[in-house]
Amino acid sequence: MDKVVIGVDVGGTKTTAALATRSGQIIKLMRVQTKREEGAEGGFKAICKMVQNLLEEAKKHELNVIGIGVGFGGPVDFERGVVYLSHHVHGWENFPLRAELEKRFGIATFVDNDANAGTLGEWMFGAGKGINDLLYVNIGTGIGGGIISGGSLVRGWKNLAGEIGHMTVNPNGPVCNCGRKGCLEALASGEAIGREGTKRFGRTMKSEEVFQLADQDNEIAKQIIAEAVEALAFAIGAAANLFNPKRVILGGGVGEAPEHLLIEPLKALLPRYTLPQSSEGLEIVRAQLGYDAGIMGAIALAITVRQE
Amino acid sequence: MDKVVIGVDVGGTKTTAALATRSGQIIKLMRVQTKREEGAEGGFKAICKMVQNLLEEAKKHELNVIGIGVGFGGPVDFERGVVYLSHHVHGWENFPLRAELEKRFGIATFVDNDANAGTLGEWMFGAGKGINDLLYVNIGTGIGGGIISGGSLVRGWKNLAGEIGHMTVNPNGPVCNCGRKGCLEALASGEAIGREGTKRFGRTMKSEEVFQLADQDNEIAKQIIAEAVEALAFAIGAAANLFNPKRVILGGGVGEAPEHLLIEPLKALLPRYTLPQSSEGLEIVRAQLGYDAGIMGAIALAITVRQE
Repeated sequence: MDKVVIGVDVGGTKTTAALATRSGQIIKLMRVQTKREEGAEGGFKAICKMVQNLLEEAKKHELNVIGIGVGFGGPVDFERGVVYLSHHVHGWENFPLRAELEKRFGIATFVDNDANAGTLGEWMFGAGKGINDLLYVNIGTGIGGGIISGGSLVRGWKNLAGEIGHMTVNPNGPVCNCGRKGCLEALASGEAIGREGTKRFGRTMKSEEVFQLADQDNEIAKQIIAEAVEALAFAIGAAANLFNPKRVILGGGVGEAPEHLLIEPLKALLPRYTLPQSSEGLEIVRAQLGYDAGIMGAIALAITVRQE
Repeated sequence: MDKVVIGVDVGGTKTTAALATRSGQIIKLMRVQTKREEGAEGGFKAICKMVQNLLEEAKKHELNVIGIGVGFGGPVDFERGVVYLSHHVHGWENFPLRAELEKRFGIATFVDNDANAGTLGEWMFGAGKGINDLLYVNIGTGIGGGIISGGSLVRGWKNLAGEIGHMTVNPNGPVCNCGRKGCLEALASGEAIGREGTKRFGRTMKSEEVFQLADQDNEIAKQIIAEAVEALAFAIGAAANLFNPKRVILGGGVGEAPEHLLIEPLKALLPRYTLPQSSEGLEIVRAQLGYDAGIMGAIALAITVRQE
């Protein structure tokens, strides 16, 4: 029987699951909405139902599911496979997700946070293919990230590595969602760009509109974007000095901004914040997986860990 | 025959070599002064002479030398074993040190920069024993560093990782030796502390004296140290968000400063620059190898790489 894997991407209100080959081809994909008020219990039930469904699909095609990878929207103790907590849904605190899934399905399971999974996804199937030293920065509502170094995901002591979004850029900057001041996330996330647009234009504005206006040469919008890019250069430059990546991959909604507003000025600014030998030849590219990053990351997780 | 290794620590004007067991016990140690004006040629001759001498010593005791590790004072292409350059001695540009040594002695040889070697040394024999996620920061005249993540040294694309000394802390800060502004090294190295002492006291001063005065409660000196510690907290906090280490090891001359002037305020400041979950339980300790860091690092390099 051919060997396949199952990936599960657990978001705040949306869970996606897929049966896939070990080269990342999706055989069947399912998506369900879950209700926040149903908490971890409702979320876990939904995961089980989808996995059960995909296992039946595999059986039908005489495929052997050798691993399950779960990308979770919140910090996870990777070694023990236990969720620390969800920022969006109650009841996930210390939930032993790996053990519960392995008990039910008897298949080796790996649980990680979605930023790590996303990093593995871009590395295996996206803009990081074949690059063993890379930095992935996901710039959406918030900013998350992950690091591949020497062909391995950098996890750190408690699997909390990659938090470039909470690097302090300006100690006197705006207050961040984490409660501290001047984090990258508070200066360059979609939310931060929207906040500045709202403030400086005097009406509610999202980051997409600020980018649109900047693209139309509006000076105020251009200034807002320039400040966000400067903060990104500061943080990415620091990371480049610390672990000397060959490629930086920008994902998330903001990562899809026009090159001349994001990637080009970022490249121009990096030498200000990075040693010349580390910035020389450093590539900055867009992520490739887009909307599929979550599920492809979960599939990558199942595959990668089995190869370790 | 018992298996042993040779370590060589190549500094600007001083080269140290040692025959050692694989648990790091030194059997014989040699130190020679080399002249800068003799360039790489003179330095390489000195290395060969010492290695030859130590090989004869090994033979006398019926010991089998299975590896040579060289810690070099400048950037090195680790994979190819080629020195990029020395900041102090001419003629080292693109010198194939590993190939030349292997050709002469027929023993597997590994060449790395001294910051990486020092990190491996503290990890194997010093303050980092048994800790698989650590950050080593050497605060001497300059500031170097290294990262162990998941039990491996983080090297990066071109073996240039670990350059925490050139992380920008204050974009408007003093000019650094690297030519950029406000690097950690320009704010918290021994040289930077001495420079501030000289400026604010109006007479030539070294960092040691600034620490002494601060220890005697001198307000100006205390302020200088506090500013340096704030810069260290900023940079170490950023690294902790990125790598989530369990332990931070402070080495070099400044690392030996009294705990109440360095480690204690650093611990108190870190939560300002690090996510609570990453700073919680994070240990900050002094390096243990002191003056022997260089040679123990070279020995560690020979041992570690053989175990990989």
